[in-house]
Amino acid sequence: MAFIHDDFLLGTPAARTLFHESAEGLPIIDYHCHLVPQMIAQNHRFRDITELWLGGDHYKWRAMRGNGIPEKYITGTASSWDKFRKWAETVPYTMRNPLYHWTHLELTRVFGIEEPLNPGTARGIYDRCNEMLASEEFRGQALIRRFGVETVCTTDDPADDLRWHKEIAGHPFGTTVLPTWRPDKAMAIEDPAAYLMYLDRLGEVAGREIDSYADLMDVLRERHAFFASMGCRLSDHGLETFYAAEYKPIEIEIIFKKVLMGIVPSPVDLLKFRSAFLHDCAVMDAEAGWVQQFHVGAIRNNNSRMMTRLGPDTGYDAIHDLPTAASGHRFLDGLAAEDKLAKTILYCLNPKDFEVFAAMAYTFNDGSCPGKMQLGSGWWFLDQEDGMRRQMNALSALGLLSRFVGMLTDSRSFISYPRHEYFRRILCNLLGEDIESGRLPRSEMDTIHAMVRDICYNNAKNYFQFR
Amino acid sequence: MAFIHDDFLLGTPAARTLFHESAEGLPIIDYHCHLVPQMIAQNHRFRDITELWLGGDHYKWRAMRGNGIPEKYITGTASSWDKFRKWAETVPYTMRNPLYHWTHLELTRVFGIEEPLNPGTARGIYDRCNEMLASEEFRGQALIRRFGVETVCTTDDPADDLRWHKEIAGHPFGTTVLPTWRPDKAMAIEDPAAYLMYLDRLGEVAGREIDSYADLMDVLRERHAFFASMGCRLSDHGLETFYAAEYKPIEIEIIFKKVLMGIVPSPVDLLKFRSAFLHDCAVMDAEAGWVQQFHVGAIRNNNSRMMTRLGPDTGYDAIHDLPTAASGHRFLDGLAAEDKLAKTILYCLNPKDFEVFAAMAYTFNDGSCPGKMQLGSGWWFLDQEDGMRRQMNALSALGLLSRFVGMLTDSRSFISYPRHEYFRRILCNLLGEDIESGRLPRSEMDTIHAMVRDICYNNAKNYFQFR
Amino acid sequence: MAFIHDDFLLGTPAARTLFHESAEGLPIIDYHCHLVPQMIAQNHRFRDITELWLGGDHYKWRAMRGNGIPEKYITGTASSWDKFRKWAETVPYTMRNPLYHWTHLELTRVFGIEEPLNPGTARGIYDRCNEMLASEEFRGQALIRRFGVETVCTTDDPADDLRWHKEIAGHPFGTTVLPTWRPDKAMAIEDPAAYLMYLDRLGEVAGREIDSYADLMDVLRERHAFFASMGCRLSDHGLETFYAAEYKPIEIEIIFKKVLMGIVPSPVDLLKFRSAFLHDCAVMDAEAGWVQQFHVGAIRNNNSRMMTRLGPDTGYDAIHDLPTAASGHRFLDGLAAEDKLAKTILYCLNPKDFEVFAAMAYTFNDGSCPGKMQLGSGWWFLDQEDGMRRQMNALSALGLLSRFVGMLTDSRSFISYPRHEYFRRILCNLLGEDIESGRLPRSEMDTIHAMVRDICYNNAKNYFQFR
Repeated sequence: MAFIHDDFLLGTPAARTLFHESAEGLPIIDYHCHLVPQMIAQNHRFRDITELWLGGDHYKWRAMRGNGIPEKYITGTASSWDKFRKWAETVPYTMRNPLYHWTHLELTRVFGIEEPLNPGTARGIYDRCNEMLASEEFRGQALIRRFGVETVCTTDDPADDLRWHKEIAGHPFGTTVLPTWRPDKAMAIEDPAAYLMYLDRLGEVAGREIDSYADLMDVLRERHAFFASMGCRLSDHGLETFYAAEYKPIEIEIIFKKVLMGIVPSPVDLLKFRSAFLHDCAVMDAEAGWVQQFHVGAIRNNNSRMMTRLGPDTGYDAIHDLPTAASGHRFLDGLAAEDKLAKTILYCLNPKDFEVFAAMAYTFNDGSCPGKMQLGSGWWFLDQEDGMRRQMNALSALGLLSRFVGMLTDSRSFISYPRHEYFRRILCNLLGEDIESGRLPRSEMDTIHAMVRDICYNNAKNYFQFR
Repeated sequence: MAFIHDDFLLGTPAARTLFHESAEGLPIIDYHCHLVPQMIAQNHRFRDITELWLGGDHYKWRAMRGNGIPEKYITGTASSWDKFRKWAETVPYTMRNPLYHWTHLELTRVFGIEEPLNPGTARGIYDRCNEMLASEEFRGQALIRRFGVETVCTTDDPADDLRWHKEIAGHPFGTTVLPTWRPDKAMAIEDPAAYLMYLDRLGEVAGREIDSYADLMDVLRERHAFFASMGCRLSDHGLETFYAAEYKPIEIEIIFKKVLMGIVPSPVDLLKFRSAFLHDCAVMDAEAGWVQQFHVGAIRNNNSRMMTRLGPDTGYDAIHDLPTAASGHRFLDGLAAEDKLAKTILYCLNPKDFEVFAAMAYTFNDGSCPGKMQLGSGWWFLDQEDGMRRQMNALSALGLLSRFVGMLTDSRSFISYPRHEYFRRILCNLLGEDIESGRLPRSEMDTIHAMVRDICYNNAKNYFQFR
Repeated sequence: MAFIHDDFLLGTPAARTLFHESAEGLPIIDYHCHLVPQMIAQNHRFRDITELWLGGDHYKWRAMRGNGIPEKYITGTASSWDKFRKWAETVPYTMRNPLYHWTHLELTRVFGIEEPLNPGTARGIYDRCNEMLASEEFRGQALIRRFGVETVCTTDDPADDLRWHKEIAGHPFGTTVLPTWRPDKAMAIEDPAAYLMYLDRLGEVAGREIDSYADLMDVLRERHAFFASMGCRLSDHGLETFYAAEYKPIEIEIIFKKVLMGIVPSPVDLLKFRSAFLHDCAVMDAEAGWVQQFHVGAIRNNNSRMMTRLGPDTGYDAIHDLPTAASGHRFLDGLAAEDKLAKTILYCLNPKDFEVFAAMAYTFNDGSCPGKMQLGSGWWFLDQEDGMRRQMNALSALGLLSRFVGMLTDSRSFISYPRHEYFRRILCNLLGEDIESGRLPRSEMDTIHAMVRDICYNNAKNYFQFR
């Protein structure tokens, strides 16, 4: 029997019924990913499987480094084949890591290859994949379409002109591609030199100078409206923790002016600025009816030597352990008190925080819509079976799993969509265990089927309200 | 087969044997709850199932808000039927939340109703429940008695005159009802205005003025003795974390005087005052031979808008993530060093803390009695299968499960006693898994049966020493 | 069937195959323990089972205290038999605690006794064990040899002259015994009086005065080289959290001078000194090609009354909850930036930290060797099935389980080696579950067998490079 067979991860009859009858065939709404719009617009053709798989995948890079593979074969100058060969050598060592499942899911679902990847099969698999990648059906748009992806939300800077989104919208290919508002750089005053360059770029796209915090917010509001006009329905913020210090508007202006003069802000000023910025952005989202996402808990760029050599997002980020409850509640409370709390998804990266985040989210539901406040899916380091189960168990115990908007890929890859299948199997398996053990009543199978369809598709559809 | 059948949650033959032969028939000692003594004394008759179920249950309120139900149907002006209807609409969406199990356990055990609650069954269930609630066997005392509750400990303020406890004691109905000493308000100097009103009330019941911290402690010692005379055997403190700063007695007097003058204490002063207060109360408990309880880790009243509208305990509390190890050890060490450490139960609300609390408790056992230092049962947000299993697994790994005093309801409801059954099933299921997998020896079934009886009943009986 | 039977803990056919065919027969590399070199050298003969089991085992002491046994029977003046009797009385109450498994594993594997220990069997077991302990095959060296222990690494202070290690090396008995460099006392400036006495002892063994931090480091480098000449390949540090403050060398010298004058360092100075010390020691390890270990997260000597009476390591330590991510990354980054990062094992004591530590470790792999950065095995309070599974699950999800160097005893006991068997059973059971559930492909059994052999033996062999 193939490793990735029909009932992969489905350990009970109930799980298999739920998956095959309800989950399997549903379209995908990938409401958070890092696909490059230009690559979608230009219907990217992949040079080879090495580009597709190893070109920017820091999950694989970390595994290879942990396996003792020299950097030359990871991000360095080695040939495509040599890099692939080193990855194939690593794969058997990734057993129990999600990469082992992802790799074979992608081989099976994208390329129809059912053998395990290892040094013995590497050459054959390399050649077959590359041959397929040369054909039209393996260009970017076809890869997305093949998985029944209805909507994709990319991740975009307010300074982005969204020209590639316009291009895609003008040449539809069957999947709706929308931008997501990610203003992290507009908050990053900790490095004034880089920040000033960013402000120039933002000012340029907006056609005006940014001389004050008020200017900044005006420009951002304009851009926000522009993003909305392009179909954007979500914002996203990457945070170490929540920021919710008290501040006066005049203080923020002064901090901003100092940054304009190149002065590195003090920790106190930095916290005040971030608190103001986050709040003001959140108000924009509420007023536009968007969903705001907070990805909380990464500690980034920890290996300064490799940061110098390779830059960010190359496998040197990790899991933070800052407290989040006090500032998180204060932040959300401030918005709720003004009636400016948008629909919100709270993602944590440290699995110990799932319960804190779930309880926090459910403290701000206001009955205005089902599942207004969401505990986000297992993300990044938690995007694996253990993480997903913990996320769903915490949400179940402290909130309503039934109202969960489900999975996202958070991926840069055109072939990471089997992770939705992976999630769906894990969800159905979890529910199947409960049914077989009598924790959920078998008499209510219809309701459970509906819950599966909701989590896999309907909830996201209703929640995000893409046009 | 009914959802809540004889072997609900009992996944192995060993679990079924343990539950049915040892756990099932034991009386209940509910050593910590929030039943209202007046309602017990007056043998409260419930207007309808809505009052009984939805009158004050913030668990259900949170679920309804999360399900998009407007506040009108939760705490607002909607009719009893409309509120019930909205709850019935929510129930199918609570699958995997403890509410789904609690709801059907209560329907089955209290009302003999085995159908699942949902919009289709709502009207029938509403009418049948209301009819039953009109009869004598569904008034407050009968509801408690029906579950074999031997002892109930309510939660009471030192300023309470315990008149309803006297009333109950004078008209016994088969369950002993005792007060618990909960002096949280006597520590709450952070709001001087409210505090002064509280001091007035406390002074009045004690028949003297409270002009100093020394006065306060004198009065509390008197009230403590009065509570003891009424059969009280437990104290309880609700804390964000432990408080164990160094202080001098004169400092505490000065802080207290400032509060009397209406001055809001600084964070440092607040911490010193709380440290002194907690310590001095703990000494009273040790000298009286009571059990002290510390409920640690809630972050309260986070939604200020709803706090203004509905007040506290309406579903806007959550899980905190403050550090607890350093201050917790310092607090307990101070008492142990003076030989004033009472029997103690440490409850945590953040599941990541179970191991810290278990190890901390077991650092202060002194051989004076079995299980002197207890890791408290899964509480509030953790009062569900996942939380209970984590609590019991942490206690097992780091201490002695066999000496655990078991479950409490912590509930305001007259029909939450099936949660003891729920706990017992989960306990027996956990042990059954270990027996079936060979982790516990089947040859020692007698010992395991004895352990079940101890955890469900004997340990609490021996530990609290109710008169 | 005996409790500790051939397939104990092996719940699936795949688990049994993995254990019996690959794990069971492998030699043991116990790369971290607390055996006393003198007792090994002198081939210690145990007076009785009470000395062997209860002489210094704070795990058992904590359980006995929790069971209400007076201290007299634990560390006090009671007779050997009475102490043993009290322990036997406690054993049935330890069900689900690792002590229950360890006790019966040791009885079975060391003494061939298969009955459960309890008050009824205590006298017989006591007498039979004592009779055996009087024979040659139950002296220290034979006990170690019996378990196929290839290498043992003890824990030694830089001031130790390693005379007993020389003695052992001169009279080989079949197991290699090597020292481990544990310089905790050389960092402990928080108690200047004790520190000065320590410096005297260190200066004496080095034959020179230590008048400055530079002197200290010179002496330590000499001792480090001496330890290396004795076959030492590992260092170890016991830390509350990581220390990685910024400092200037001159500051460290001034702090050191003040300590020499008996001045207790301020918290800021203490942190700077520890940061410098840890860093400088880490550089020594890198230059010598050693493996450095960091045991992080104990809060020690929490019961000051018992500390006065019994001293340290008597059962009054617990689990800390300080943040570790920021300082841990900073510490490792400093070393990586200088290219002075040795092979490193990071152990945590709070199970909530496994994911943080795993992600942190994998942020500093550099491809120089497989598994350079290790997430250490479940340690101390986590050295039980739940802790081991969580450690292996975190490592699997975030890194490469296949490159894990496996189990250590961390024990003072000559008969704790069945814990390696325990670990191996748990490992095989974990993999067996994955195979039977299709999470690992049955077609790759050879690879999985190899992984088992690697984790149980080969990885440690290759990683530590003992001579």
